[in-house]
Amino acid sequence: MLNFQYFMPTRLVFGPDTLDQLGDTPYLPRGKKAMIVIGESGAMIKQGYLSRVQGLLAKQEVQTIVFDKIAPNPESDDVDEAAKICRETGVDFLVGLGGGSTIDSAKAIALMAANPGTYWDYMQSGSGGGKMPERDALPLVAIPTTAGTGTEADPWAVITRSDSAEKIGWGNDSTFPALSIVDPVLTISVPPRQTAYTGMDAFFHATEAYLATCRQPASDMLALEAVHLIAHTLPEAVANPENLEARTVMAWASTAAGLCESYSSCISHHSLEHALSAFHPDLPHGAGLVLISKAYFGFLAARGEERLGDLALAMGDTLEENLEEEVSGVAFLDALDKLITETGLADEKLSDYGVTREEIPFLAENALTTMGALFDITPVSMGIEDVIAIYEAAYE
Amino acid sequence: MLNFQYFMPTRLVFGPDTLDQLGDTPYLPRGKKAMIVIGESGAMIKQGYLSRVQGLLAKQEVQTIVFDKIAPNPESDDVDEAAKICRETGVDFLVGLGGGSTIDSAKAIALMAANPGTYWDYMQSGSGGGKMPERDALPLVAIPTTAGTGTEADPWAVITRSDSAEKIGWGNDSTFPALSIVDPVLTISVPPRQTAYTGMDAFFHATEAYLATCRQPASDMLALEAVHLIAHTLPEAVANPENLEARTVMAWASTAAGLCESYSSCISHHSLEHALSAFHPDLPHGAGLVLISKAYFGFLAARGEERLGDLALAMGDTLEENLEEEVSGVAFLDALDKLITETGLADEKLSDYGVTREEIPFLAENALTTMGALFDITPVSMGIEDVIAIYEAAYE
Repeated sequence: MLNFQYFMPTRLVFGPDTLDQLGDTPYLPRGKKAMIVIGESGAMIKQGYLSRVQGLLAKQEVQTIVFDKIAPNPESDDVDEAAKICRETGVDFLVGLGGGSTIDSAKAIALMAANPGTYWDYMQSGSGGGKMPERDALPLVAIPTTAGTGTEADPWAVITRSDSAEKIGWGNDSTFPALSIVDPVLTISVPPRQTAYTGMDAFFHATEAYLATCRQPASDMLALEAVHLIAHTLPEAVANPENLEARTVMAWASTAAGLCESYSSCISHHSLEHALSAFHPDLPHGAGLVLISKAYFGFLAARGEERLGDLALAMGDTLEENLEEEVSGVAFLDALDKLITETGLADEKLSDYGVTREEIPFLAENALTTMGALFDITPVSMGIEDVIAIYEAAYE
Repeated sequence: MLNFQYFMPTRLVFGPDTLDQLGDTPYLPRGKKAMIVIGESGAMIKQGYLSRVQGLLAKQEVQTIVFDKIAPNPESDDVDEAAKICRETGVDFLVGLGGGSTIDSAKAIALMAANPGTYWDYMQSGSGGGKMPERDALPLVAIPTTAGTGTEADPWAVITRSDSAEKIGWGNDSTFPALSIVDPVLTISVPPRQTAYTGMDAFFHATEAYLATCRQPASDMLALEAVHLIAHTLPEAVANPENLEARTVMAWASTAAGLCESYSSCISHHSLEHALSAFHPDLPHGAGLVLISKAYFGFLAARGEERLGDLALAMGDTLEENLEEEVSGVAFLDALDKLITETGLADEKLSDYGVTREEIPFLAENALTTMGALFDITPVSMGIEDVIAIYEAAYE
């Protein structure tokens, strides 16, 4: 029998040019002082996005300070530093502007601006202190400039412990953004390869949410929609970055996949990737997911996971031809292979990012220790030998 | 280009026997005094639902008072009376237990418990005072015992002005329930005819949300899901009221259609029905919708509304046979006719409820005055002559 919880309290404003609404929306969190969190690359400054957001907030009489130290795999020390500044300067709310790392960091900063101690005191797995936060996070406005993480529609922050290789996702009801503005125009400046990485991240959010045992009807629908749209649109967004229609479809697919992270969850595929990019911070999360995906989903297909067939159908071109034959996990693996090729990612290898065969046992141990909970909602059970075998297969 | 807002902050807990969670959920609104709002029929007392809810709230140390005067078409004087009691006794939150009329009333009471004046001061159309409430409504827990209105997943309250024939839907961000517990077991006690009425109400929420010009991708998906499930399940729920599987599917379909009311909207079909049941309070809302539906959707089909074909597909038995031919508005009208017959409602007539041909011009005037905004998001434009013609066609 159906049994689920449906909860996603963020107000999502979606569409080209909706960023302008920041200047007059009545839904801005209360307060007159905000911290804008951006990445260390300087892209938000070069693109003019930071000054635009500052100007729009000024129209609402909001003063802003900027924290610009967020790395692609954001670290807990930076969260703690930014939170200290928030407390000292009386920041009322946060604005996360950029990709998933930036918005995730803004969520974690919002939490620590309202609670004592360090961020890692509150992590519930790995070396985390296991404390429960006593206060809600400060409100957050999320403004994604990539289409991939879906963090604008979920409570999750993925942060790596500084000086360690523990990359953990965490969130609670107060770390849902209060307001997310998803303006696809902002994603036009994302280069092709990063478009492919982030788009594939969204693809796997949807894929995994469809397979997770904690799925529900709404996540199933959104997942199939996202998988369908990404399979049919991501290659075009990679090939023609200025195609606003493709960018808009990808932005919605990414947000839909983010909703899946709230209504359902990702599965252990993400645990395996977090271990990789925790040890190798230069490995983009989306690239890591792609690099282990054929081995990982091949493992599920070999164990007869039937719902892979539904995903293959959603990725197919026509329904009529698929009705002729039974669609299976093998069809999904074929469609996945085709999508990876069409997005230009077929030539990448784990060794390109410095991953060695020798570290595989440590990666497997890390995946099970830091993100072990995702194994419990994975439809096929897997022990450490299985995880090692998947990494081995991905390495070849 | 896609452009929409997605916002539904209610926490929905769904599934058989989830009512028990009321006794220990951490998501109960704060406070130790609640008003439980129930209908005047006494059904909640006879079924034992009221005492069960009181007992579960007592486990959370919440004292309750009961307001039991809600009519099937609830009236503004009762809202004002209950709100006065809330203010005088220091109620912290509301619990709406019952059908849509009860939960809608609880929303209106929650608003008026926190604001001065009368409920009608705040209505924005018809003879309403046009005031904006200064304070948020008190928090509300919604516990639906019918599958139909979807009010557990939207902010709308439909209240009729006492001593008048103005039935208006209204709501704001604060009238979304804080927590909705949708336990299909509670709907098993609903008699067959009321099951049909309420199920058809849900059917039209989904149908209309799919056609409304303010639709968005998420409402499209949920609407097609609800239409599909209702067409395939409601006849069984009517025929075998104790079939928990059918009741569970209908409860989810109703909630999904309620989500559509948050992400999209109903259209002028609902305006036409509100006029009918405002003049004839004994006419159940779902019955009124059914009685005008063939004329109303026939009007849309005659004007080439193509999306009716998608709805026909969702109602169909197999996709394969439908792929052979173009599916049109006529196919939807056929499927609608079949569903009305299968739910046992084909023999009803407007005159059974005292509606006369002579009052049709007044009904049309009322529909346009009190719920005129829904005409603006109806995909086919219609003037008062068209509305009169639809009522005339429905009357024959």
